[in-house]
Amino acid sequence: MSPVNVLFAGHPDRWPEYEAPLTEALAEAGVTAQVTPTFDDPVSVSYVVYAPNGPYTDLSPFTRLKAVLSLWAGVEDIVTNPTLTVPLARMVDPGLTEGMVEWVTAHVLRHHLETDLDVLRAPGDWTPRVPPLARDRRVTVLGLGALGAASAAALAALGFRVSGWSRSPKSLPGITCHFGPEGLAQILNDTQILVLLLPATPETDGILGAEMLAGMPEGAVILNPGRGPLIDDAALLAALDAGRIAHATLDVFRQEPLPKSHPYWSHPRVTITPHIASATRPGTAVRAIAENVRRGEAGEPLLNLVDRTLGY
Amino acid sequence: MSPVNVLFAGHPDRWPEYEAPLTEALAEAGVTAQVTPTFDDPVSVSYVVYAPNGPYTDLSPFTRLKAVLSLWAGVEDIVTNPTLTVPLARMVDPGLTEGMVEWVTAHVLRHHLETDLDVLRAPGDWTPRVPPLARDRRVTVLGLGALGAASAAALAALGFRVSGWSRSPKSLPGITCHFGPEGLAQILNDTQILVLLLPATPETDGILGAEMLAGMPEGAVILNPGRGPLIDDAALLAALDAGRIAHATLDVFRQEPLPKSHPYWSHPRVTITPHIASATRPGTAVRAIAENVRRGEAGEPLLNLVDRTLGY
Repeated sequence: MSPVNVLFAGHPDRWPEYEAPLTEALAEAGVTAQVTPTFDDPVSVSYVVYAPNGPYTDLSPFTRLKAVLSLWAGVEDIVTNPTLTVPLARMVDPGLTEGMVEWVTAHVLRHHLETDLDVLRAPGDWTPRVPPLARDRRVTVLGLGALGAASAAALAALGFRVSGWSRSPKSLPGITCHFGPEGLAQILNDTQILVLLLPATPETDGILGAEMLAGMPEGAVILNPGRGPLIDDAALLAALDAGRIAHATLDVFRQEPLPKSHPYWSHPRVTITPHIASATRPGTAVRAIAENVRRGEAGEPLLNLVDRTLGY
Repeated sequence: MSPVNVLFAGHPDRWPEYEAPLTEALAEAGVTAQVTPTFDDPVSVSYVVYAPNGPYTDLSPFTRLKAVLSLWAGVEDIVTNPTLTVPLARMVDPGLTEGMVEWVTAHVLRHHLETDLDVLRAPGDWTPRVPPLARDRRVTVLGLGALGAASAAALAALGFRVSGWSRSPKSLPGITCHFGPEGLAQILNDTQILVLLLPATPETDGILGAEMLAGMPEGAVILNPGRGPLIDDAALLAALDAGRIAHATLDVFRQEPLPKSHPYWSHPRVTITPHIASATRPGTAVRAIAENVRRGEAGEPLLNLVDRTLGY
């Protein structure tokens, strides 16, 4: 049996850390495969492991491609690529979900307990404070996909009063779920900490804008580990300047790295994390890729297929 | 039936926030009681609600006392009081446990993800980092009482590799439990984040000292939300100065407020929280007190009785 050719089209710098785990994961999945970042003959490639910061934007030379397997959870760059004519699978990596849950939980707790006051505490300043308990803190997660649902569940397990919102109706244990435009307005006026985990689509572009911000209570906090375009940056900066929004902790931006001149950098109410909320970790991601190659070769449906009309 | 007299012997400043909830909780427990911070006749007092920062150190005038109900989880001050001749109950307040779990989880995640680097990030510094997942982070909780067990469970639920240690053997789902002196040395050399939640007793005084610190791996982090005397401060400062211990986040101290001249205040590897890890919150604490008064009056055994030979 000739090997299945899998092209690693992620960033070339990442190849060294992926080569061994990916080769091994494919072998463990029972697939005889050849994985490299280049193939002399593009027609011989069956699967492309894709990242938008990799070397390929034109997929048309891969005329016998069976599927594109995204290394990233976000697929907004590839889903609109006109040369994509085969099934596309998102990365749903347990490590990626775990990393996101950890980031979200860490920063929700950071704002809930105001631990920045301790990190920045002046020597000799013994000023106690008694924050409310998590059971009296209202957190809302926008977007209840794999990452949003897992984050909401972790926060609920810690006792937070968690609401969730998604485009279509969902039901999650311990989470008050809303959906659709009416549902959104209904929960925002009661939200103290808002976590953005929506996909980036034309419908969600700038969804956190002046209107949504005006519907939130004074002193609310925004966390964006989702996608940069979810935020109307001018509207958020205005709400931060006015002090209506107490703080924003942002991991993703419309342009990355965030330009050095961007007002977020020096804003006292903004904390920046450099797109680290959820990194794809080779150790866990390669198993998701190998499983989809195995399925493709066995004629089974791929996991985590993207619906291109929805964009995610 | 004449009312049961309950003396509120907590700090007088706290009485206004306790008066209504405590009165209400006693009524809800079906006890006809009179609660005030003073009684003309000490002989008429049946229960003392006690805090070490309150006005009473001599309990001998209360000759018909049935029990002392501590407002605090820590009872090291009252348990050695020679005028204490009646049963003593510790505070086990669900709000207190929840608050502790939130503090521990927040600060473990803070060190795990190194979020101080983000809070203190220089404008324009886009330096990503990929921390290990919680599943690859080894956290140890010393002390598996109500607070330690709940904290360990919350950390395990987030995926951390959690070990626990207690004086006597315990078994907790998802936690690798050790006990006794041999067990302690065994887990310390594998501990990246150490959480101190032991009671303050003669045996635990200075337990985190030079020997224990020398047995921990380079770069370990110490969290002490437990009791100040657990730490040999000179030994910890030496380990921090040497950089062997990467950071200590301390909530409790041998002297509180921590004296302004104490070297912890300005140490770059120390974060101080002013004894706020777990505040007794009136709303939940009063129910624990009322239930014990009800039990005392009904001749039922009190909950959370202190074993005075053990000191907790």
